[in-house]
Amino acid sequence: MEPRYLTRLRAMRPRVHCITNYVSARDCANLLLAVGAQPVMADDPAESAEITAASDALVLNLGTLSTSKLEAMLLSGRKANEKGIPVVFDPVGVTASSLRRDAARRLLSHVKMSMIHGNISEIRILAGEEAPPSGVDAPEDIPDEIAACSLAGRLAGQTGAAVLLSGRTDIVSDGARCVLISNGHPMMSRITGTGCQLSALMGAFAASAPCDPFGAAQTAACMMGLCGELAAARMGKQDGSMSCAGYIIDAAFHMDENTLKEGARYEQGSGICPQHAQAVCGH
Amino acid sequence: MEPRYLTRLRAMRPRVHCITNYVSARDCANLLLAVGAQPVMADDPAESAEITAASDALVLNLGTLSTSKLEAMLLSGRKANEKGIPVVFDPVGVTASSLRRDAARRLLSHVKMSMIHGNISEIRILAGEEAPPSGVDAPEDIPDEIAACSLAGRLAGQTGAAVLLSGRTDIVSDGARCVLISNGHPMMSRITGTGCQLSALMGAFAASAPCDPFGAAQTAACMMGLCGELAAARMGKQDGSMSCAGYIIDAAFHMDENTLKEGARYEQGSGICPQHAQAVCGH
Amino acid sequence: MEPRYLTRLRAMRPRVHCITNYVSARDCANLLLAVGAQPVMADDPAESAEITAASDALVLNLGTLSTSKLEAMLLSGRKANEKGIPVVFDPVGVTASSLRRDAARRLLSHVKMSMIHGNISEIRILAGEEAPPSGVDAPEDIPDEIAACSLAGRLAGQTGAAVLLSGRTDIVSDGARCVLISNGHPMMSRITGTGCQLSALMGAFAASAPCDPFGAAQTAACMMGLCGELAAARMGKQDGSMSCAGYIIDAAFHMDENTLKEGARYEQGSGICPQHAQAVCGH
Repeated sequence: MEPRYLTRLRAMRPRVHCITNYVSARDCANLLLAVGAQPVMADDPAESAEITAASDALVLNLGTLSTSKLEAMLLSGRKANEKGIPVVFDPVGVTASSLRRDAARRLLSHVKMSMIHGNISEIRILAGEEAPPSGVDAPEDIPDEIAACSLAGRLAGQTGAAVLLSGRTDIVSDGARCVLISNGHPMMSRITGTGCQLSALMGAFAASAPCDPFGAAQTAACMMGLCGELAAARMGKQDGSMSCAGYIIDAAFHMDENTLKEGARYEQGSGICPQHAQAVCGH
Repeated sequence: MEPRYLTRLRAMRPRVHCITNYVSARDCANLLLAVGAQPVMADDPAESAEITAASDALVLNLGTLSTSKLEAMLLSGRKANEKGIPVVFDPVGVTASSLRRDAARRLLSHVKMSMIHGNISEIRILAGEEAPPSGVDAPEDIPDEIAACSLAGRLAGQTGAAVLLSGRTDIVSDGARCVLISNGHPMMSRITGTGCQLSALMGAFAASAPCDPFGAAQTAACMMGLCGELAAARMGKQDGSMSCAGYIIDAAFHMDENTLKEGARYEQGSGICPQHAQAVCGH
Repeated sequence: MEPRYLTRLRAMRPRVHCITNYVSARDCANLLLAVGAQPVMADDPAESAEITAASDALVLNLGTLSTSKLEAMLLSGRKANEKGIPVVFDPVGVTASSLRRDAARRLLSHVKMSMIHGNISEIRILAGEEAPPSGVDAPEDIPDEIAACSLAGRLAGQTGAAVLLSGRTDIVSDGARCVLISNGHPMMSRITGTGCQLSALMGAFAASAPCDPFGAAQTAACMMGLCGELAAARMGKQDGSMSCAGYIIDAAFHMDENTLKEGARYEQGSGICPQHAQAVCGH
């Protein structure tokens, strides 16, 4: 976890190209602006690669997927790889349809991801496991820390990406190492798009620390969770989920390196998997 | 009006598949999460039926309609009927274009709706009457209670759906019975998507009480109107329509059975139409 | 600058058809409702012209452009011209892709615009100058007032539109005259869609004063900037960009002729270009 990446992000003002869903696009754009990044939303295959080429990071999000959007993701993803621009993949709802499963498969086989972010069901699908169907906004809790670290590590080993498995505890693994993050607040699951916002934030951090996706993913996860905690703590008696949604982005606006350093709660996980480490090193 | 359906809804956490417009999709998702339901937004014909099949209710909303979205609605609507999943239809802007009128006609002839929600112009079109063109966000007031009950009852008789005709007074009819609901606040017409949110909420209640669409529609209408009242009452001197928009969803987040029971304002309408009742019974 | 246009707008309740992006569509709709206009969002070529024909203004915004949306813009733009309905053009991100540059070229050659709104890079492209690529949400500051007036005046002369060049100082020109507007607040650049909202507001004012696009554009720019100032002034210690976003629309809700008259800050620019004036007169 590297709080200084936030200071770097604010100085760099990275342009983050998001190919994302229309439910949370506004919140993703506002979060990116709040932290000092520049969002660019564009999803037509006729322009997406050109826009990616002028960006500092690319975020691919499967929410409200369409066949046209998938085409744009493939073109943008390849362009990003060609240019060395980091790519973040958020397989929203990949458990919900064969369109999304096929999309994920095609994207993972044609585009090298820097980071992948999903809940346990989504990560299971990407890692080739069968998972029971699950709601987009309602990931089941992670039952077992070692199993979760192992799962995230396995997908990291398969893809070369830093994998963020989100749940009550977030797990970040690069295949060799595993970090457990306990920032976050249950209110976040009552607000649409907080997961999408985290993926967008990962894009901004990926741009700021392209050589350290593992550290960048942790920093994004700690920061997003901490914003959720600060937002929930700010809630008055009449405030509900919608006020909290605004407070999360307000908290991101005010976040600084020191607040992040003091508020981050994380620890090394015990689920280190040498065989995955090897896979990463051989990448 | 059945406040206990809210408690049931919160226990059930129904998954509500919305094929809806991109203007209010975020608000619909946040309202559903606020009341304890699970929103799923997906509108590509390549996946929509599969997603409907794993949902507890389907909401079809004609806002920002496209030919592709209409295809998805038809596929999802048929799948919902096949599986016995309740369908809510909101013919947003059906007065505004022949595309939407044709879409409404096709949807009504291919999909059995559990509930229909529209303003007076929209319900008139669906019931086969000519109506003057009218704004999406500006339904004219209902001039005459008996005529409105009769209109809602007629469409209910034609379709077998519980019909919610929204206006200064909301009318709910199943063809045999008619209830007048006076919850609501003029501020709601100054906020985009409050009608769409009510339709989404009807979807959640339809899932919670699949055998009683008439009662479920009333409960949703009372609750949404009451949320508007509570939100308007909470407004400070500087608060305007946007603060009120957030307070509505905050109110839904905090709503419980007792508050709903005490705040609901409704009465039996006098516009009972025996011939429509017969049509319903023969359904 | 004509504050009385606001009073006229509220009395007229113009219907404003927006073909716009899905990132800020909700905010544009809410701003329009806040000022008393009626938003209609529709972007399918199968219905867009029909919807335009029943509207009082048309707003074309290139954000999240698609080939289908461009088709709708062309059909709606021609219909608006045919019916004498004012058209506002916002070339969002026209610097970012050849799709958008081609779209802008086609729209400008087939549709007569009443108003054009863009940042300096976007206006340069439309006026036929080469511009360095620039972020959608981060226009560079305008270096030189006379050059900026000249640029805006040139595009006004070329198109016959009132041109609003937004930056730290906003410039409005009709080719013959130039007004400098200093309303606004840096917070606005930290919130997605404030530029799109201004374009939507220009549509509402264009409908209210169809014979005076030059005055209507100034009024919209002063009002939007003033709303940003009032919103920023209202911010509490914990409020960030997202609270400010809500306060902007709240301020528009409460805005009246007197507040606008007292808060507007503008002056005649010195960059008057007689040759452009001639071009306008010959239009």
